[in-house]
Amino acid sequence: MDRRSFLKKAGLATAGGAAASTLAAPAIAQGNMELKMVTTWPKNFPGLGTGAQRVADRITAMTDGRITVKLYAANELVPAFESFDAVSTGTADLYHAAEYYWQGKHKAFNFFAAVPLGLTAAELDAWINHMGGQELWDELAADFNVKSFIAGNTGVQMGGWFNKEINSLEDLKGLKMRIPGLGGEVLRRLGATAVSLPGGEIFPSLQSGAIDATEWVGPWNDLAFGFYKITKYYYWPGFHEPGSGLSMGINKGVWDKLSDSDKAIFAGAAHAETNMMYSEFNANNGTALDTLVNKHGVTLREFPDDVWAAVAKVCDEVVNESADDDMGKRVLESFHKARNNVGRWNDIGEKAYLNARSKALFS
Amino acid sequence: MDRRSFLKKAGLATAGGAAASTLAAPAIAQGNMELKMVTTWPKNFPGLGTGAQRVADRITAMTDGRITVKLYAANELVPAFESFDAVSTGTADLYHAAEYYWQGKHKAFNFFAAVPLGLTAAELDAWINHMGGQELWDELAADFNVKSFIAGNTGVQMGGWFNKEINSLEDLKGLKMRIPGLGGEVLRRLGATAVSLPGGEIFPSLQSGAIDATEWVGPWNDLAFGFYKITKYYYWPGFHEPGSGLSMGINKGVWDKLSDSDKAIFAGAAHAETNMMYSEFNANNGTALDTLVNKHGVTLREFPDDVWAAVAKVCDEVVNESADDDMGKRVLESFHKARNNVGRWNDIGEKAYLNARSKALFS
Repeated sequence: MDRRSFLKKAGLATAGGAAASTLAAPAIAQGNMELKMVTTWPKNFPGLGTGAQRVADRITAMTDGRITVKLYAANELVPAFESFDAVSTGTADLYHAAEYYWQGKHKAFNFFAAVPLGLTAAELDAWINHMGGQELWDELAADFNVKSFIAGNTGVQMGGWFNKEINSLEDLKGLKMRIPGLGGEVLRRLGATAVSLPGGEIFPSLQSGAIDATEWVGPWNDLAFGFYKITKYYYWPGFHEPGSGLSMGINKGVWDKLSDSDKAIFAGAAHAETNMMYSEFNANNGTALDTLVNKHGVTLREFPDDVWAAVAKVCDEVVNESADDDMGKRVLESFHKARNNVGRWNDIGEKAYLNARSKALFS
Repeated sequence: MDRRSFLKKAGLATAGGAAASTLAAPAIAQGNMELKMVTTWPKNFPGLGTGAQRVADRITAMTDGRITVKLYAANELVPAFESFDAVSTGTADLYHAAEYYWQGKHKAFNFFAAVPLGLTAAELDAWINHMGGQELWDELAADFNVKSFIAGNTGVQMGGWFNKEINSLEDLKGLKMRIPGLGGEVLRRLGATAVSLPGGEIFPSLQSGAIDATEWVGPWNDLAFGFYKITKYYYWPGFHEPGSGLSMGINKGVWDKLSDSDKAIFAGAAHAETNMMYSEFNANNGTALDTLVNKHGVTLREFPDDVWAAVAKVCDEVVNESADDDMGKRVLESFHKARNNVGRWNDIGEKAYLNARSKALFS
């Protein structure tokens, strides 16, 4: 999905920045500290906005209010996509966002959210927590005066909603699909027209035939958008965001001054939120999928093998080309090692178990 | 795996209980509180013992030592499998363990660790955190004066090491396999001889031919046990423990007296450890699998379809029969709903993505 355009449509991405032009140290009153967390999400946006609120509230609760984290929805304090700069410069103390929004700062940020044909949520956590991912991320973010943690995951995103069937690679040629970022570049190289559209324009564009297809997130968020009312085919599996990590970034000056105990609280809150948000998406996607299929009669379709084979090949081309300096190359190499090692374990582990269980229970 | 027998062999399960026969309130000195966490793991047992230590240390760090959680390895304070009673009665304040060890108290405890043909780690978290699992668990545990959280997961366990090939259901008949618990009962109903053996006796028994096969955990822990030296076939996928949740149980009197802030710290530490331990197993299983295959020449084999079909059918029989009272039936119903809803989402979500990516990258 592309939350940027969604926010733009909602009039959020351009408003509200002026008030925050001064650099403020964290407010301290009576020995307490108030920290500002800016986000790239509308207030209480399901899963993402509510998750950001939960991690802010958890820090406040764990410190018994000694540190209060006040959450600002997109554009309440700064424009949504200035969140990184705001934390980097100290206008805000923390952000909750997805790192691929900062790919204009450095393309390697993509890897710490999601890249096409990349890592699942579990694989991302394995890489970040135990295979050198956090250390590379620390090095990258420190150049911008930020310290970051994974603090949420949406899980794999769906392939999208299509007005026409995709029976072969030929059907991608000329297809007009709303799909932003690296995923859009992949489709473009296969002859499709990948476009970005604000969230609010997707539904009417799909209805009028101005576009043939769109991806968004997954059953939970897609059900709310009502695409089932106008499109027949809901395709799986998605290739473009196999496990989109969300992140909590902290101004490094603020982070460095925290006590070891408070550092443990911030890190613990981020890890806990990863567990809470990912499981929330899984729980709600399961229920929403049931509603889409059994109540609204949505037709689930699997992308054909030749489409996936072609898409997968181009994914790695696009992703590998994005690593165009020393930092990028080191991140890419570490990412490849994690994808290969944990991926091969998944191959005979959870993936194999789910295949076997599925045959027994669902076929 | 069966950690009970492993501990027995190590001489741990019978020693050390006598010292802890008195009921002690949490030690309080100078406004600080020391809590005792007993565990069912040997000290620093990779993944499980180290995870228990990490969650204890995290609580200590997050409270800045105001609450110190002192960890006792299996049998240092009480016998490993008296951990539950110790926390229930207040001899200890917390335990870190797997709930299926308490199935003698109530069979429904199995569901909060792992049951055959059950939930993956992600599905267990979805059920516990967002689909009513925690509420049922709270009700069950409260009857024993305990409040529990998920605090770790091993991920899916491997099918096991076999001296002979399993080419059809016929090959299970008469097979002598070391596999405890509900998984063992499943194999028994299919004509195998399922036995329990202490961890230290598995290797020589497999070597001498006294048993034909054994399961243990997964590549990381299995590599350390050296089974690759004497067996040819390492089978996947395992059916018996598809995502073994570990848990932190707290004496309910201690829990109820904690401030809201400290409750947030305990809960947050448990959620954080779930993220840390599961990702650690994935990271290390990936690397260990590579070593087993590429350094030690282990042959990976997939269980044949007819074996899996028969096993799966019996799994549900065994699990359903275990729900023999009102509490059990309500837990079973809630578990089934989670497995069905999240399972069907996984079917077209992560499972499908991993299948497609695997074809592109690993075949």
